[in-house]
Amino acid sequence: MTKRLLTNARLVTLAESDAPYGMIDDGALVIDKEHISFVGKAVDLPADTADLPREDLGGRLVTPGLIDCHTHVVFGGDRAREFEMRLQGATYEEVARAGGGIVSTVKATRAASEEELLTAALTRVDALIAEGVTALEIKSGYGLDTDAELRMLRTARRIAKERPVTVRTSFLGAHAIPAEYKDRADAYLDEVCLPTLEAAHGEGLVDAVDGFCEGIAFLPEQIKRVFDEAKALGLPVKLHAEQLSNLGGTALAASYGALSADHLEYLDEAGVAAMAQSGSVAVLLPGAFYTLRETQMPPMELLRQHKVPIALATDCNPGSSPLASLLLTMNMGCTLFRMTPEEALAGVTRFAARALGLEDRGTLEAGKRADLAIWNISHPAELSYRIGFNALEKRIFGGSE
Amino acid sequence: MTKRLLTNARLVTLAESDAPYGMIDDGALVIDKEHISFVGKAVDLPADTADLPREDLGGRLVTPGLIDCHTHVVFGGDRAREFEMRLQGATYEEVARAGGGIVSTVKATRAASEEELLTAALTRVDALIAEGVTALEIKSGYGLDTDAELRMLRTARRIAKERPVTVRTSFLGAHAIPAEYKDRADAYLDEVCLPTLEAAHGEGLVDAVDGFCEGIAFLPEQIKRVFDEAKALGLPVKLHAEQLSNLGGTALAASYGALSADHLEYLDEAGVAAMAQSGSVAVLLPGAFYTLRETQMPPMELLRQHKVPIALATDCNPGSSPLASLLLTMNMGCTLFRMTPEEALAGVTRFAARALGLEDRGTLEAGKRADLAIWNISHPAELSYRIGFNALEKRIFGGSE
Ligand SMILES: [Zn+2]
Ligand SMILES: [Zn+2]
Repeated sequence: MTKRLLTNARLVTLAESDAPYGMIDDGALVIDKEHISFVGKAVDLPADTADLPREDLGGRLVTPGLIDCHTHVVFGGDRAREFEMRLQGATYEEVARAGGGIVSTVKATRAASEEELLTAALTRVDALIAEGVTALEIKSGYGLDTDAELRMLRTARRIAKERPVTVRTSFLGAHAIPAEYKDRADAYLDEVCLPTLEAAHGEGLVDAVDGFCEGIAFLPEQIKRVFDEAKALGLPVKLHAEQLSNLGGTALAASYGALSADHLEYLDEAGVAAMAQSGSVAVLLPGAFYTLRETQMPPMELLRQHKVPIALATDCNPGSSPLASLLLTMNMGCTLFRMTPEEALAGVTRFAARALGLEDRGTLEAGKRADLAIWNISHPAELSYRIGFNALEKRIFGGSE
Repeated sequence: MTKRLLTNARLVTLAESDAPYGMIDDGALVIDKEHISFVGKAVDLPADTADLPREDLGGRLVTPGLIDCHTHVVFGGDRAREFEMRLQGATYEEVARAGGGIVSTVKATRAASEEELLTAALTRVDALIAEGVTALEIKSGYGLDTDAELRMLRTARRIAKERPVTVRTSFLGAHAIPAEYKDRADAYLDEVCLPTLEAAHGEGLVDAVDGFCEGIAFLPEQIKRVFDEAKALGLPVKLHAEQLSNLGGTALAASYGALSADHLEYLDEAGVAAMAQSGSVAVLLPGAFYTLRETQMPPMELLRQHKVPIALATDCNPGSSPLASLLLTMNMGCTLFRMTPEEALAGVTRFAARALGLEDRGTLEAGKRADLAIWNISHPAELSYRIGFNALEKRIFGGSE
């Protein structure tokens, strides 16, 4: 059977529409192989669907499959002990002396085999899938040497073979300066980061190039070098920017037509205007905001005024956001950043797709890929309202379950 | 088979011990019918267990079953629409005009049959059970008339028949003043609340008596009337106190030997000292703190100095804490209230049991009820560290799965 007909559904299309959420009641949806061929009122179904068996959804709500557009799910080790030390009152220095911080994740990631990285990452990916995620982004950036960076990216590609999700990879060699290059960021870029990017691209492992622009990581002029290499290779860019301070990373990324700029707590209006100009998506990461007990909110009103599309993601990582729930991320977007439930849902579907350059999904429209999530709820606001509650009935990945 | 032998386990006993978490490595645990008969090192197993078949836990971690000691999981309707209206900028008055607030939950609860209340509550209870909860408290308080309060409590009792969890009920007639008694709180107590408590107790529906002591609910002298009735009926008391302001409710509750005082953001040292004196448990509810974006933290240091036992609970309710995850509650206790992971775990086991007067559980010790949770993690701090991730392997309720 190459065609499927879903009926008795409330379709939360997220398409341009006068209706909130682009919602269509008494809806029907036709899937033709991997794609959606009809979305609309049941009464408007095309005549040639009359003979298809009907899958009655019992009035359930259908959304596009959720998309987590910023994750670091591939890594070695965990940082639970460090979390505990901090809460027991240890200073940052004591944590560092005990081997904590990103250094510990780099060490564990370098020591892990591809198989070990895969097994650990799948536990996190499965938690996301269980909540309706059908596509996610995965970054490198805990290897910081050629072997381990390539291993992380190969692991990310394997996840897409082991599970029915779509994976988009980002090369994040410019995530941190490894201990062996302390105070020699440019040497690290010359000798490790840029050659590794080229090698990874040569293996077809890179869908986009990312960096961390911050005083404790890389400065704008160093990020520029990474972006120039990305441009030379024909790869799109994105950036961790304005998370802890305002270095102008977002404007830099926008000048390269970045897919997205991410975090953005300290972004100013000039940066917002640059994003509006470039069409970059603002990817907000409330899990890190929550975990770090940040109090500076991203400039929500400016982003809205300038009509910058806003996405939400887990930032799933072992340090600042050990969060494996995109539904909880939606609640945090509402509770902590005062997003509306409609903005939150668009942020994990329509705009998350755009942040990954996935033009073929993120809404329920004819021609889009049939990645769907079907929910046991009566209104889409419930997805953001409930905390720690998963109302997923089932998923459809490219037309199949 | 009435005896079970679990081996190759890391036992997180939470018992008095010099080891953090009361942890025992290379542990074994013997279950005799519904109770634990041995907890210790495998090498110390009693000789008469030599012939028992061994259930090898593969080094997994075993904790006491988790206990959610403060919930409102039985209610009608939901408040997603109100959540959305607020985020769209509606004022409290507009929300009230649209039928929002607790009034809407009371209306929906009064309109719901016992069957409807049960079906809805079970979705929440099942979410808790899926994370290792083996006992929970359930309050009335959305009926506010005799029929609906009794229906809520009967529903709570039925949950314990439908699922293998232990349920402790609390009568919370003094939760809010219903619209028909506006500005006549004492008349509500005389005509509805106290007679209903007596009727509910007559049906065996009440394990404890609770109230909400706050300017927007009941004043201390009104709570006192409820507690006097509880005392006359021989029922223990507890109280929602010092959540939004300091009215001295905690000291009042302590003077009645309360099992617990709950919320406590505005508690002062006199109140803490009163709790220490009475042996009451401080039940902290970070889900409400988070949802209400409260900034006043409970007096953590004073509670520790006065050695008041601290429990954590979801407060699962449709308004201020639509939270159905006790694991996330543990993370919130750490992240928002700066509890240690060991305090958080003791707060949902040992001290949650004490808050419910359940002397027979909450730790892994010989003689305790065999309510266990078995986890795919290597250190108990991971339970609090991870966010939106459920590492539960399985549960054992009173010796059975
Ligand atoms: Zn990140
Ligand atoms: Zn409560």
